[in-house]
Amino acid sequence: MGSLNTENVLENSSAFGVTNPLDPEEFRRQGHMIIDFLADYYRDVEKYPVRSQVEPGYLSKRLPETAPYNPESLETILQDVTTEIIPGLTHWQSPNYYAYFPSSGSVAGFLGEMLSTGFNVVGFNWMSSPAATELESIVMDWFGKMLNLPKSFLFSGTGGGVLQGTTCEAILCTLTAARDRKLNKIGREHIGRLVVYGSDQTHCALQKAAQIAGINPKNFRAVKTFKANSFGLAAATLREVILEDIEAGLIPLFVCPTVGTTSSTAVDPIGPICEVAKEFGMWVHVDAAYAGSACICPEFRHFIDGVEEADSFSLNAHKWFFTTLDCCCLWVRDPSALVTALSTNPEYLRNKATESRQVVDYKDWQIALSRRFRSMKLWMVLRSYGVTNLRNFLRSHVKMAKTFEGLVGMDRRFEITTPRTFAMVCFRLLPPATIKVCCDNGVHQNGNGVVALRDEDEKLVLANKLNQVYLETVNATGSVYMTHAVVGGVYMIRFAVGSTLTEERHVVHAWKVLQEHADVILGKFKEEDFSNQKKMHLMMNGGQLSF
Amino acid sequence: MGSLNTENVLENSSAFGVTNPLDPEEFRRQGHMIIDFLADYYRDVEKYPVRSQVEPGYLSKRLPETAPYNPESLETILQDVTTEIIPGLTHWQSPNYYAYFPSSGSVAGFLGEMLSTGFNVVGFNWMSSPAATELESIVMDWFGKMLNLPKSFLFSGTGGGVLQGTTCEAILCTLTAARDRKLNKIGREHIGRLVVYGSDQTHCALQKAAQIAGINPKNFRAVKTFKANSFGLAAATLREVILEDIEAGLIPLFVCPTVGTTSSTAVDPIGPICEVAKEFGMWVHVDAAYAGSACICPEFRHFIDGVEEADSFSLNAHKWFFTTLDCCCLWVRDPSALVTALSTNPEYLRNKATESRQVVDYKDWQIALSRRFRSMKLWMVLRSYGVTNLRNFLRSHVKMAKTFEGLVGMDRRFEITTPRTFAMVCFRLLPPATIKVCCDNGVHQNGNGVVALRDEDEKLVLANKLNQVYLETVNATGSVYMTHAVVGGVYMIRFAVGSTLTEERHVVHAWKVLQEHADVILGKFKEEDFSNQKKMHLMMNGGQLSF
Repeated sequence: MGSLNTENVLENSSAFGVTNPLDPEEFRRQGHMIIDFLADYYRDVEKYPVRSQVEPGYLSKRLPETAPYNPESLETILQDVTTEIIPGLTHWQSPNYYAYFPSSGSVAGFLGEMLSTGFNVVGFNWMSSPAATELESIVMDWFGKMLNLPKSFLFSGTGGGVLQGTTCEAILCTLTAARDRKLNKIGREHIGRLVVYGSDQTHCALQKAAQIAGINPKNFRAVKTFKANSFGLAAATLREVILEDIEAGLIPLFVCPTVGTTSSTAVDPIGPICEVAKEFGMWVHVDAAYAGSACICPEFRHFIDGVEEADSFSLNAHKWFFTTLDCCCLWVRDPSALVTALSTNPEYLRNKATESRQVVDYKDWQIALSRRFRSMKLWMVLRSYGVTNLRNFLRSHVKMAKTFEGLVGMDRRFEITTPRTFAMVCFRLLPPATIKVCCDNGVHQNGNGVVALRDEDEKLVLANKLNQVYLETVNATGSVYMTHAVVGGVYMIRFAVGSTLTEERHVVHAWKVLQEHADVILGKFKEEDFSNQKKMHLMMNGGQLSF
Repeated sequence: MGSLNTENVLENSSAFGVTNPLDPEEFRRQGHMIIDFLADYYRDVEKYPVRSQVEPGYLSKRLPETAPYNPESLETILQDVTTEIIPGLTHWQSPNYYAYFPSSGSVAGFLGEMLSTGFNVVGFNWMSSPAATELESIVMDWFGKMLNLPKSFLFSGTGGGVLQGTTCEAILCTLTAARDRKLNKIGREHIGRLVVYGSDQTHCALQKAAQIAGINPKNFRAVKTFKANSFGLAAATLREVILEDIEAGLIPLFVCPTVGTTSSTAVDPIGPICEVAKEFGMWVHVDAAYAGSACICPEFRHFIDGVEEADSFSLNAHKWFFTTLDCCCLWVRDPSALVTALSTNPEYLRNKATESRQVVDYKDWQIALSRRFRSMKLWMVLRSYGVTNLRNFLRSHVKMAKTFEGLVGMDRRFEITTPRTFAMVCFRLLPPATIKVCCDNGVHQNGNGVVALRDEDEKLVLANKLNQVYLETVNATGSVYMTHAVVGGVYMIRFAVGSTLTEERHVVHAWKVLQEHADVILGKFKEEDFSNQKKMHLMMNGGQLSF
């Protein structure tokens, strides 16, 4: 069976005039080629610069302006993947990837995605492919039991779970359900009075969901958090803000505590927040996108204590649970609230199974009608590894993060900025106490050109800029990739362990890279004369200053 | 490299205590197994009952109640896929599948999904994986040019395209953009006055999107369509409805014409609708989910004439363009309206590329933050087949639908109910003019037990029930699968050609099955004594009446 080149177009004859685009033997031949291509990619991924080094617009210079008129062979296309696409990838599967949160791929997750894509069923309701719906309900109960979720969140209890694409969708769906449950009681005209609460550490998904759901942007509250609470949302503060809103004639609707915030993996206290929410009749959605997976380990389960009083709970299995993107697990206590807000019943989808009320139609649990067979990959992951290995995989990441934390802690030039709770370490490089610098704005120079910074604010500004430049320098090497956050005004470097291929030796390597560049940047701070105002200016703006 | 069974857990040693879950050689071994499994599936898919024959709850009886504690081998899991999952699938890839709309898989689409899943990058912004963003922009321009979309919808012009999951998401995003553009002018407090328009044939996605976006459910208009217009939305009627709303103090916001409705592939006249929308400052989104793909053929392009005056246009490449689920292509004329409504800018995602304003950050063009590398599969499809073959594939489906239409047209027992425009034929079985039936409600019996139905309404009710039972009988054979719609009160059977493996012989086979069951059901109508009131009752309720 030849490739689909122009000659074959003329030679082959079938209903299409060419080989059928889903010809089983062509599928076999080309499928094996791609498997080998990807296996080689994983074998070699460590060699690529982790963060892509291309410049904006690189690809349009390399690809034609229009689609080809005639077919091209897979060999040609894969050659282009190697030369044109791979250089433009940031390698999330690299063992040297510590940026954002992990996107932990696995063989089982990949195989599940292949089966799902291969069957290519569209499981909007039970009828359209019963196995897609039923397997999803079953694995959501399996996973819920692994997390020790209350019965009220399981199908085997009184609730149920659904696989969404992302946490953003999960929040939008639950917020819509909460909104309509409230408006159906008090009247649609009050939509402008509803208020949504998170903290200043809550993921931007909440604000965006509120925006999409028609909540007045003025009625979104990012309640301030403090270092004293490790940047968790204090229930008492939340209550005060709610009372102020009620005083102003507004109606509290929805609060979203986080287990493992994006910036620093802070944990909001679910129990106390649920108590406050209960007092005001609010919906509580627990966003455990990153850290929820860890709660299958008994030693981490306490972080979601109190979840039994929440209305919904979600985590991203595509982040730290070995199922490839996308796979957000959402459990709800009252599926009927979701269904009331999101159901449709067009004639062309009517069927006996739905009318028997014996089945779940997941189209009514999500934004879209169509949906992929996502449970296949979660099922493959759960069965291929088993609970015992999954716990150990997660623990190994936490252990590596502890190792890294220990290394940072032993070097007095560095500081751990927020407590490590899971597998992410937040740290920064400390600037020297006194440095040579030109007085630009509010920096005081003494007699011999050595300056003392005026106050803590000035120190912080300089420390933040130092770390910004430092991180850029480290990432520019291509040998590791980390990203940053600013919490409580402090710019810090996030070191998130969780890429599946990462081993202890990679963590040690990353630390060496960090140390080497610390030597260089701090050396420059001590030795260089910063009287050059331009350099100072560049540094203060976080530009690419080459020390 | 052994499978991940319990013994290996003890034998292997690495950071994980077991083989790394993304071990390249294990990936290679298991990946090849899955390719062969799926190639065999495509080879054999014709043998399976197209519509699954399982009963609700079948799977929970066959699977354990909890996830396994210890790992299981891929061999064991695949055995379960064969015995437990495949019987519960409705086989959308079967050549005998004519239900809903197609979900046209292809080798290239599958391979693209594999590469996307394999790289597993999370391309929320340019920085996070530049190739994911840039390839998407490039293929959206390629595809836009193939459709002869106006320059104002392309990046090479003044607009741009984005890949969403589904049309539901595309509509929700554009509706949110339209809503906020309007509310930013007139004030947020007017959200309750905004009105959204479709026709009674518009996909339920529009109503659901309006619901999610906080549009008052009372302000959703499904404008009535008529047979005289082939169930297209008449611009004049739309205008009348809008004027009534304005009279009532409401504000017209958004109208969604369809090119290829779900029930009967009707086409709303885009140009005239855009003219009306322009008069009232409304956003026009063109939903060409199914039929848009056909417009790459010059002979079908005229169906989207007028699109240059619309604000946005979408089609589902996962329906009839050989990219597996999900892949909705959305083009917009004013990307800044989307970005204004949907952007977020948290500190932890700040980066130089975004600040340079030289890049697209697709997170601001969609609901979710995270996003898959969907352009990979569209790119693979475009390159592997080329424009010429893609046109021919689509034409071959249209040709097969024409063949089927011809067969139905030659049999006087059948009727084509709505005109065929693309690759779907809507038809029904005609009931005999007089039948033996007991007078139940308003059915008159003459002297010899043969009845004439009282009027057209009674005839329609009986014809609808006849076709409902007929379709159920046909689908129960498992040898073909079709679904139904009710348009203008008429229950009709939809025969949608588009499954990639379908060839002319399958269409002829489907027609034979239909004819055989028509013989049986009409024979029963003539021969049976319908004086049994229970039978009549059952039939009138569409129950499983075995004639």
